[in-house]
Amino acid sequence: MIELQEKGEAFYFIADYHALTTVADPAALRGYCREVALDFLACGLDPERAVFFRQSDVPEVNELAWILSTVCPMGLLERCHSFKDKTARGIAPTHGLFAYPVLMAADILLYDSNLVPVGKDQKQHLEVTRDLAQKVNDRYGEGVLVVPEPMIRENTAVVRGLDGQKMSKSYDNTIPLFEVEKALRKRVMRIQTDSTPVEEPKPVEGSLLLELYGLVAGEDAASEMAASFAAGGLGYGHYKQQLFESLWEHFRPARQRREELEADPGAVDAVLSGGAVRARAAARVVLDRVRRAVGLAD
Amino acid sequence: MIELQEKGEAFYFIADYHALTTVADPAALRGYCREVALDFLACGLDPERAVFFRQSDVPEVNELAWILSTVCPMGLLERCHSFKDKTARGIAPTHGLFAYPVLMAADILLYDSNLVPVGKDQKQHLEVTRDLAQKVNDRYGEGVLVVPEPMIRENTAVVRGLDGQKMSKSYDNTIPLFEVEKALRKRVMRIQTDSTPVEEPKPVEGSLLLELYGLVAGEDAASEMAASFAAGGLGYGHYKQQLFESLWEHFRPARQRREELEADPGAVDAVLSGGAVRARAAARVVLDRVRRAVGLAD
Repeated sequence: MIELQEKGEAFYFIADYHALTTVADPAALRGYCREVALDFLACGLDPERAVFFRQSDVPEVNELAWILSTVCPMGLLERCHSFKDKTARGIAPTHGLFAYPVLMAADILLYDSNLVPVGKDQKQHLEVTRDLAQKVNDRYGEGVLVVPEPMIRENTAVVRGLDGQKMSKSYDNTIPLFEVEKALRKRVMRIQTDSTPVEEPKPVEGSLLLELYGLVAGEDAASEMAASFAAGGLGYGHYKQQLFESLWEHFRPARQRREELEADPGAVDAVLSGGAVRARAAARVVLDRVRRAVGLAD
Repeated sequence: MIELQEKGEAFYFIADYHALTTVADPAALRGYCREVALDFLACGLDPERAVFFRQSDVPEVNELAWILSTVCPMGLLERCHSFKDKTARGIAPTHGLFAYPVLMAADILLYDSNLVPVGKDQKQHLEVTRDLAQKVNDRYGEGVLVVPEPMIRENTAVVRGLDGQKMSKSYDNTIPLFEVEKALRKRVMRIQTDSTPVEEPKPVEGSLLLELYGLVAGEDAASEMAASFAAGGLGYGHYKQQLFESLWEHFRPARQRREELEADPGAVDAVLSGGAVRARAAARVVLDRVRRAVGLAD
């Protein structure tokens, strides 16, 4: 996402409407939004380039979601994995959770987005989005909505967490980028490895540790570590320490920016309200076009 | 509804968002909205008293609908009759149709409504509304939403149509109030009656014709007609003519007002935009309270 902001007009938002499906505590919700804003800005999101805003600062998205609902076959939502997956994990089976993909489609379509960076697990939601946009265009005329394309970076299509599953807060298997040093090292030490003895060569193929190291330290460094794996003689603890150090160094500048931003809450608020103004202006254009097309406006 | 505008602060709207679940033609939708506005104003809705607006002029309702969705168990919607009834009649089973009761709840709760005049068939939707309001209050604090009460007038709880079923445009069994004379008489002549010969007494109990006559001409006139039924000697055609004349006279002033309004489209537009301003102001107060309560705003 940070890279993409250089390549076009990028829109990124903090999904607080969606968060209501799992967060019932208002103070927690406000806190999470603040943390996400800090994380993104610390990582280099440039609010002069990208439009960065809070989802609920553009309430227009709910109107588009309703309009999309009226062309959305129930079967399309019933086939979505996410509702079943989430309720299986104990999240309450509410209508909000069921309607999640429709609001997500509105999030995308409201800005005439043509490219959407997605992880592999979100591909189905983008399919739903494309389907709904096409249905609107079929009914009301081509060009009413832009049908977006997915953009999947192969090396980050799925980022695995400490236990080898998809990295996700709900699975408690994340490596939190801005964790304090001691706790971060502890997390890294939890990365799942096999029981190969220290002296012996370690399997390179499918190694979670190598995979994560490659994402942080780059391909060359990962190749070196792979060679060392194959040679044997060093234990996994050694390599985990190497990953930890790489992480710690890699995110040092971001960590510093985050501390500065944390000390200046007004600046973050200003970024988000500025983003809201730009996002609403863009949304208005699309929504007016849609309202006219469906007959809600002249 | 016309009576109620004298008794309190009444909000009435033209449900164009909901109409999108069945009307896919933008010109038709615009036309229907205009007709409904004319009908209500002609019948005596006083925009100085009641707040009269188009649903889509207060897009805030969609935001409240989303928030309600996040507390709404899927089972609550799955138990609603209307989705099954409508899809059984051939209406497309879209997500909009399924989510209909949630938007309807938002329509009611957005204005802190405490009384909702409903027909018998809408009672379940009001139950859903009460349920959602209570769920919001349980989670976020009493008083966040007003839990409304139904108001059912017994003699109009169900108005039966020409075929004895609930009167409904979808059943093509209505008596259109503003139909031209000849066509209106033809409709009235279609009212279902039994095959009692002219000379014999007609059954009073359960007579659809008597029931409709009572609604238009009043209880006293209906009692007279009932006595004539019991006496026998007159055919149903005679009574239908009586009902037609009563209808024609009863709605004469409204018909005249409607013609005047039709000649002045700007006036109707002005009524609706005035209503929108008042409705939005009322909605804003409630929505701000809800947004703060759930954590979307400080």
